[in-house]
Amino acid sequence: MSLHLRSLTITDEFWSHYRELVRTEMIPYQWNVLNDNANITIEKERNDNNIPSEKSHAIENFKIAAGLKQGNHYGWVFQDSDVYKWLEAVAYSLSIHPDAELQELADSVIDLIALAQEEDGYLNTYFSIEEPERRFKQLAESHELYCAGHFIEAAVAYYESTHNEKALHIACRLADCIDASFGKGEHQIQGYDGHEEIELALTKLYSLTKEQRYLNLSRYFLYERGTDTTFFARQQAEDSGTKPVIAGMNHRPLEYYQAHQPILEQQTAEGHAVRLVYMCTAMADVALLAGDTAMLEACRRLWKNMITKRMYITGGIGSTVDGEAFTLDYDLPNDTMYCETCASIGLIFFAFNMLKNEARSEYADVLERALYNTAIGGMALDGKHFFYVNPLEVHPENSRRDPGKSHVKFTRPEWFGCACCPPNLARLLTSLHKYIYTVQSEQKAIYTNLFITSTATLEIDNHKVQLEQTTTLPWEGHVSIITHTEQPTSFTLALRLPYWADDYSLVVNGESVVNGESIEAEVSNGFIHVDRIWQSNDKIELILPMEIKEYTAHPLVRADIGKVAIGRGPFIYCAEEVDNGEHLHLIQLTKNQNYQYEFDEQLLGGVGKINVEAQKRTITSQWEDVLYASQVSTTYDATTLRLIPYYCWANRQPGEMLVWLNQA
Amino acid sequence: MSLHLRSLTITDEFWSHYRELVRTEMIPYQWNVLNDNANITIEKERNDNNIPSEKSHAIENFKIAAGLKQGNHYGWVFQDSDVYKWLEAVAYSLSIHPDAELQELADSVIDLIALAQEEDGYLNTYFSIEEPERRFKQLAESHELYCAGHFIEAAVAYYESTHNEKALHIACRLADCIDASFGKGEHQIQGYDGHEEIELALTKLYSLTKEQRYLNLSRYFLYERGTDTTFFARQQAEDSGTKPVIAGMNHRPLEYYQAHQPILEQQTAEGHAVRLVYMCTAMADVALLAGDTAMLEACRRLWKNMITKRMYITGGIGSTVDGEAFTLDYDLPNDTMYCETCASIGLIFFAFNMLKNEARSEYADVLERALYNTAIGGMALDGKHFFYVNPLEVHPENSRRDPGKSHVKFTRPEWFGCACCPPNLARLLTSLHKYIYTVQSEQKAIYTNLFITSTATLEIDNHKVQLEQTTTLPWEGHVSIITHTEQPTSFTLALRLPYWADDYSLVVNGESVVNGESIEAEVSNGFIHVDRIWQSNDKIELILPMEIKEYTAHPLVRADIGKVAIGRGPFIYCAEEVDNGEHLHLIQLTKNQNYQYEFDEQLLGGVGKINVEAQKRTITSQWEDVLYASQVSTTYDATTLRLIPYYCWANRQPGEMLVWLNQA
Repeated sequence: MSLHLRSLTITDEFWSHYRELVRTEMIPYQWNVLNDNANITIEKERNDNNIPSEKSHAIENFKIAAGLKQGNHYGWVFQDSDVYKWLEAVAYSLSIHPDAELQELADSVIDLIALAQEEDGYLNTYFSIEEPERRFKQLAESHELYCAGHFIEAAVAYYESTHNEKALHIACRLADCIDASFGKGEHQIQGYDGHEEIELALTKLYSLTKEQRYLNLSRYFLYERGTDTTFFARQQAEDSGTKPVIAGMNHRPLEYYQAHQPILEQQTAEGHAVRLVYMCTAMADVALLAGDTAMLEACRRLWKNMITKRMYITGGIGSTVDGEAFTLDYDLPNDTMYCETCASIGLIFFAFNMLKNEARSEYADVLERALYNTAIGGMALDGKHFFYVNPLEVHPENSRRDPGKSHVKFTRPEWFGCACCPPNLARLLTSLHKYIYTVQSEQKAIYTNLFITSTATLEIDNHKVQLEQTTTLPWEGHVSIITHTEQPTSFTLALRLPYWADDYSLVVNGESVVNGESIEAEVSNGFIHVDRIWQSNDKIELILPMEIKEYTAHPLVRADIGKVAIGRGPFIYCAEEVDNGEHLHLIQLTKNQNYQYEFDEQLLGGVGKINVEAQKRTITSQWEDVLYASQVSTTYDATTLRLIPYYCWANRQPGEMLVWLNQA
Repeated sequence: MSLHLRSLTITDEFWSHYRELVRTEMIPYQWNVLNDNANITIEKERNDNNIPSEKSHAIENFKIAAGLKQGNHYGWVFQDSDVYKWLEAVAYSLSIHPDAELQELADSVIDLIALAQEEDGYLNTYFSIEEPERRFKQLAESHELYCAGHFIEAAVAYYESTHNEKALHIACRLADCIDASFGKGEHQIQGYDGHEEIELALTKLYSLTKEQRYLNLSRYFLYERGTDTTFFARQQAEDSGTKPVIAGMNHRPLEYYQAHQPILEQQTAEGHAVRLVYMCTAMADVALLAGDTAMLEACRRLWKNMITKRMYITGGIGSTVDGEAFTLDYDLPNDTMYCETCASIGLIFFAFNMLKNEARSEYADVLERALYNTAIGGMALDGKHFFYVNPLEVHPENSRRDPGKSHVKFTRPEWFGCACCPPNLARLLTSLHKYIYTVQSEQKAIYTNLFITSTATLEIDNHKVQLEQTTTLPWEGHVSIITHTEQPTSFTLALRLPYWADDYSLVVNGESVVNGESIEAEVSNGFIHVDRIWQSNDKIELILPMEIKEYTAHPLVRADIGKVAIGRGPFIYCAEEVDNGEHLHLIQLTKNQNYQYEFDEQLLGGVGKINVEAQKRTITSQWEDVLYASQVSTTYDATTLRLIPYYCWANRQPGEMLVWLNQA
């Protein structure tokens, strides 16, 4: 008995738009950036003179490392990863939309990377050009294994998409170099990179090549992490290099790197948010591939802490700019947080790998939450402007004049000095089809995580089965899946019952399904499972009520006390100044309001908007030149509060934005 | 016709306690610190490795500069000012409480300072010891004129208290050196110090010596400020020194130094809060002493902006730790602010100098607000522990684990690396008698700013008049003033009608005063003026209702929306975890509550406490492992909210603290 997913094609209107943007805008645009051909403003993500940002220079770095040009490395020590993430996005894009010219370009980049790789497989333009003697000697800051991981991910994707073996060959040589250099052997480094990434890349390389050493190495890095808490400090003390690898970075606590404790002992999601979720992504994969139940338990523990105590309602994570990090339970300030786009993308990776381990809808709920809100909120509708930081409350004057909010942008800049987020989005969107289903092969079950119009081709016991999913989501709640089979085939088709739907109805071949009747439909772990012998043109329909929800945060979230956030389906909504005037905090919802939903074709490329009657506090003459007063009479004007989905904020004129709304 | 204030003696119980603490605890304690004899923990006010804090070394620096010892300067570049502020506090203390031994000690410090002064009058141990060639070449950071100002202030106070001319002589030589070095002359420096202070010191020196050059120099510094916005940058470019005077400081914008515009053009209170109020203090004095109405207008403008848009209800100023600075109008976050003790002390200086210009109760109201809340809140009841930062909302775990709140301490440390606040408090408290009255000599009027039990001796047309003020404030609202005259004397006695009293009654010699009856009592600018021929044992009584007030902030203060702060008389109240349990934000006041006031002798050295019935939100089982939920039923438990005056928070076990309380 077996069930495998062979291919997936997205034809969904909402998502095809984004994927086309990646192909037609982001990939060419990023290529220009990587080659310093783009006439754009590269914006620093923070006010910090240590940040190199005049140009990308990323391709130039490879040419210099390859010996094709003279010069110095420029940019971040992890600048190479921009090229790798571009390459990975190209790989996925080619799998969706073949393009000989683009493939030729990517092949040439791989040729260049091959030239930049050293004899022994080592690959890193910064250290090859500038400081070869410091190789692997400053792992807290060097990002060498981080960059290697991104190349390996790209190579795996490129092989899967194009069968180009050259990139894969470079990746294996690089992985072999790392495998030789790290471990418990006499001349090996017993340590790990400051930024997790190699771990998750090695599991992908293992999954493709079945080379056990790669899985073992990933596991080694994970288990080594945090066991010897003096590792980074010792490396720094022993390093003879005089200049910092990254200026101003060496004061971070070990939690920043998740290196404060062995990972199985870590009870809470700590430190740099992207690193944490990258680590967890690898842990979940290792748990699955190595059957490591202790690792799975650790994943569940970190997941639970993060999701039930440290995640924004938009799927953002990282409560502080200082270290782009988690802080403490229930500390979720809306106007100073970080909520990096990459962190939500990493959260999606983690959620998906947990789904591969165990079909529980909570993982897919979070995946969907991060995807439909913070991830796509990280890019403008034009596909050319990007947020690094995704706030839930913005006041442009505060961003301009309060240094503590200078990282909170109110318009999406064109590019960033540290350009991790845009290419990360590109690779997520082009690989989105991978996230729709997960398969539990042994149970012969396929789980529908995301409702996206698409066609999936399965192989079940050597027979081809197609699932033709058609949905009105994300705007309306109808999902239908039609099966196409070569012969009647028995398997379980499970559909997620999302957190935002209080109810559902299931119709199979036109008949409503009620438990105990002709069709078995068992609900467990948030999925409704239909186990039957499927015929061609069987049709299963799931109807989800698309009610407008008022969400309340846990009472210990001080930032949200007395406030509600509005959601409909997968979307969290927000108010913008352009629709509501300034001083959004003066507007308050009254209880039991009647929300009006309307899809507006003309608005922001077509979005469902929500209007609701509300009241706006008036600033009476009593307050002229008065800051504090007793015996205040509070008066309100009636107003209509207009809300749009959070993901499309900051696509019109700049102004205030607010997710958590005051409630009377 | 003339009216002069000759002497003042405070006998008030509340304030005598504080003044005694300065004499018996702070002055000896600080002396030990200055001599590195104290067995104390010197706490960094921020997590910054650039801060020198192992020891004070301040007296040692003088010994080295004086040639009595070998060695290097240690500590901040402005370490000298700790000695000067100690000396100033000693001066005031000696005027209250003669102490031959202490005076001898202070004389010996002055002898030491005299030895450290250079031939030409220059005085600064850092530059004399370490970098004499950089004298006056890095004024943005060097604090040379700032330190000079503090010495001059101390010398003036010491002369007034002890008639010791040596300190005054040093001060004049120092002022002459500065006068020779700065100005529009050919070989003079056309510039000013990064930290205002010399300006206000020079007006004091002028007032004592009547040397017009000192007033002119103060005025010069003020008018020069911000006219040439390239001054600091040019000095930095021309400076041949290689090490920074203060590490990490040179990135500050000109607003930080109030050097972005000529001061008459500055419309808003910007930059480092202490600097701003020190500048304004000098401006108000120059306006008075030089009859400079444009300067007075500028003072009024900056005052109004600060008081009506940028001041906390506790009289704290400085909304951000970054630059210890103002941010923008109505931006008053309660848990990340700075609200430095010194800034509120500077605000008191400014308010008092404005009162000297014009008798308007708003200045005295703010003076009182800052004094009774943030200023004395800056020290523990034991007189040995001090806050630098005075928050309005504290959560110890957030201070521990959120880097953005690491500056917000929840217990008062013993001392600080940058020890400006404790000695600033010492000199304020020992000179407090100066703030009780202001005199408008030409109108033959005396204004009662503060209600403090005390005896004032006036000279009116060469006759002695005593005002014996007795008050039950700050806890109850009765004030009486008995006049003692040599002969019936005509003058106006004006009493402030404080902002916290909606009503008042005035009784003169046992008779209620109603306008138009036998006694004239005119209310204007927030004072009630009684103009009559006073006899010995005339008695004027002012009865102020001590109602408990619910204060609301201007609706544009987002941090306080939906919240109230409780006050009674001059005190703002707060809730502490020790009285109310954890999660103070879950408690909410219901409208029109019945507040209970009770003076508790046993509590915190004797304070008036306030209790009120309130409700505390329960965390129901619905929230187990849930972060966001719809269809939430909110339930409350009845509770009694217990409040204490803000100034005495953090004197019991550590925990949460909250000023702005949620209101249902």
